Amino acid sequence: MSVTAAKGFDAAAVEAGLKASGGLDLALVVNRGPKQAGAAVFTSNRAKANPIIWSQQVIKDGIVSAIVLNSGGANCFTGVEGFHVTHATAEGVAAALNVSASDVLVCSTGLIGEPLPLELVLSGVKAAAETLGDLGVAASEAIMTTDSKPKRSVRTGEGYTIGGMAKGAGMLAPGLATMLVVITTDADLTALDLDTALRTATNLSFDRLDSDGCMSTNDQVTLLASGAAGVTPTPHEFTALLIEVCLDLAEQLQGDAEGASHDIRIEVVNAATEDDAVEVGRSVARNNLFKAAVFGNDPNWGRVLAAIGTTDAVFDPYNVDVSMNGVRVCHAGAPDRPRTEVDLSPRAVHVLIDLNVGTATATILTNDLTHDYVHENSAYSS
Amino acid sequence: MSVTAAKGFDAAAVEAGLKASGGLDLALVVNRGPKQAGAAVFTSNRAKANPIIWSQQVIKDGIVSAIVLNSGGANCFTGVEGFHVTHATAEGVAAALNVSASDVLVCSTGLIGEPLPLELVLSGVKAAAETLGDLGVAASEAIMTTDSKPKRSVRTGEGYTIGGMAKGAGMLAPGLATMLVVITTDADLTALDLDTALRTATNLSFDRLDSDGCMSTNDQVTLLASGAAGVTPTPHEFTALLIEVCLDLAEQLQGDAEGASHDIRIEVVNAATEDDAVEVGRSVARNNLFKAAVFGNDPNWGRVLAAIGTTDAVFDPYNVDVSMNGVRVCHAGAPDRPRTEVDLSPRAVHVLIDLNVGTATATILTNDLTHDYVHENSAYSS
Repeated sequence: MSVTAAKGFDAAAVEAGLKASGGLDLALVVNRGPKQAGAAVFTSNRAKANPIIWSQQVIKDGIVSAIVLNSGGANCFTGVEGFHVTHATAEGVAAALNVSASDVLVCSTGLIGEPLPLELVLSGVKAAAETLGDLGVAASEAIMTTDSKPKRSVRTGEGYTIGGMAKGAGMLAPGLATMLVVITTDADLTALDLDTALRTATNLSFDRLDSDGCMSTNDQVTLLASGAAGVTPTPHEFTALLIEVCLDLAEQLQGDAEGASHDIRIEVVNAATEDDAVEVGRSVARNNLFKAAVFGNDPNWGRVLAAIGTTDAVFDPYNVDVSMNGVRVCHAGAPDRPRTEVDLSPRAVHVLIDLNVGTATATILTNDLTHDYVHENSAYSS
Repeated sequence: MSVTAAKGFDAAAVEAGLKASGGLDLALVVNRGPKQAGAAVFTSNRAKANPIIWSQQVIKDGIVSAIVLNSGGANCFTGVEGFHVTHATAEGVAAALNVSASDVLVCSTGLIGEPLPLELVLSGVKAAAETLGDLGVAASEAIMTTDSKPKRSVRTGEGYTIGGMAKGAGMLAPGLATMLVVITTDADLTALDLDTALRTATNLSFDRLDSDGCMSTNDQVTLLASGAAGVTPTPHEFTALLIEVCLDLAEQLQGDAEGASHDIRIEVVNAATEDDAVEVGRSVARNNLFKAAVFGNDPNWGRVLAAIGTTDAVFDPYNVDVSMNGVRVCHAGAPDRPRTEVDLSPRAVHVLIDLNVGTATATILTNDLTHDYVHENSAYSS
């Protein structure tokens, strides 16, 4: 399952002692080949953690032998020692697997500004390398931080498989959401093909998940191909299946967002451009007043229009329709059906915004703003 | 006091029956002259309420005889009837005072999408016109919505006075914060002078208040001059005093923000440009994770750096210093003093961000993200 569903991949997960709470905290995923193609996208936050700086160099030649991931520390803003820890981690993996350190990606997640103990990481790497096998499920557990459950997805194409794992529960915002994702496939594709497919898929999935508007320093989504299935799907076919996996994982991230009580799908239709639709959806997704209203089961469409009004999208505020869970509460910028007809008690909430100016559409996934969100993000550091 | 501190102004406040909770809900401020110069700035939200659309036309000639303000309804997205209600309100004031409706500003505040009952407004206007006097204090109470207390400020210059009132407790975000403000002066200044001074002052005060990142549809800040003092201060002198009044009112708005338990002053120094400093400060002010951490008295500087990283400002993430309440917890993008040394228990929190690239500076005022904020904005519509 997970990253070991596709042929050619082994994984391992160990307790390296990095997480104060104990439990699995270090995962290793190895591409046994015959090919070792890889692609990755990274946080667009300009404050990048050490593993991001390292991995951006590793991915340049499109060759990835292994990826090592730890929870229990983000290794971000950890001083000059921090980059050394990342580099030494890759060297440790390279030594244990007899590969080149320049083909080893590193991902870290946890608290910013806390040093990551190198000795614990290195002994964890060694232990992981000795237990490699069909351990995708354990690997998906080792990367959890405040996640309440692991996230995994597998899809099967014509003679090949795509499988992935993800972690992330807070700081979920675009470019990317705050998360680590590793996806593997046994299809035979070049690094360039993988890169194109991955950018398309993340643009339509993780980049449209905006749980709390906060962007992480450590996001990384990696796609590895072993070629072990001996099949080369068309780019279109492969990308479509990859999008399914990414959307499945994105929805699992949304469903496990810290403290959320509603999963909100904001669908913007009849926009002038797709960019406009994304901007409008994201503006509503980031409006704390709207998000608090949904928590209170209050279909406050005035807050939706007020949020749309802050965008640069093409629209006429007096020609916008808003529906919530199937009830059109606002038509042409004026009250329509009574808001009492809207039932917001289910966890799933659908907000449909019709801009009435074009044909473009986009959907943004977000969550409500709850007491539990405030509690989880104020009571402990994360 | 308040808007009647300056010579040449009368005010009134009545119970028009607009607020479900009862109490004063309609205020009238009249400029008795001899001059009737006025300037105003409006919300930059493209979804504008009817009174904004009306007032933007009225202010064009720089002549304002009176301003009428109601709580109990924003008159925003209220259909074709809504604009008529605003227009008829101005006509009602004009008839009662024997002035031109085109010299009457209108402001409304309350729930979006609910019709404002015209008959109640008109009878309130009539009653207010009959009780005009030195009632600036009552007027400041009539414009309150979720405010826990009225906001007033008065400053005295060389032979003239500036006094003002403000309302606003939620939806406090830039361009402008969500609020209504009326400021009067008996200085003798042209509408053009007033406009220049007002734009400078709001840019440095209300525009830098960002309590919750949510921008209102009804914001308006109005400055009226009667010339009754017979004094014409220099633009520099007048603007400096006006800034004092605006900052005083802005800090009162911050101090009364819905549900807040901390007033956070984010001071960005040594930025390349003032725009950069504002962008960095605003990004931190809008970061829910940082705001929740302050609520929990957690000096989580990693969230500050993660927020800065999402901006386009000139900075090097590994050359930024962050201090919280006087303790430098981050130096050059690495941990400095232990976070345990920071005391965030006082309501006032000072975050100092040193970008180390230039000489520009800006301060943004915000609040923390609390259980009470979520409660107040989920339990009732507003």
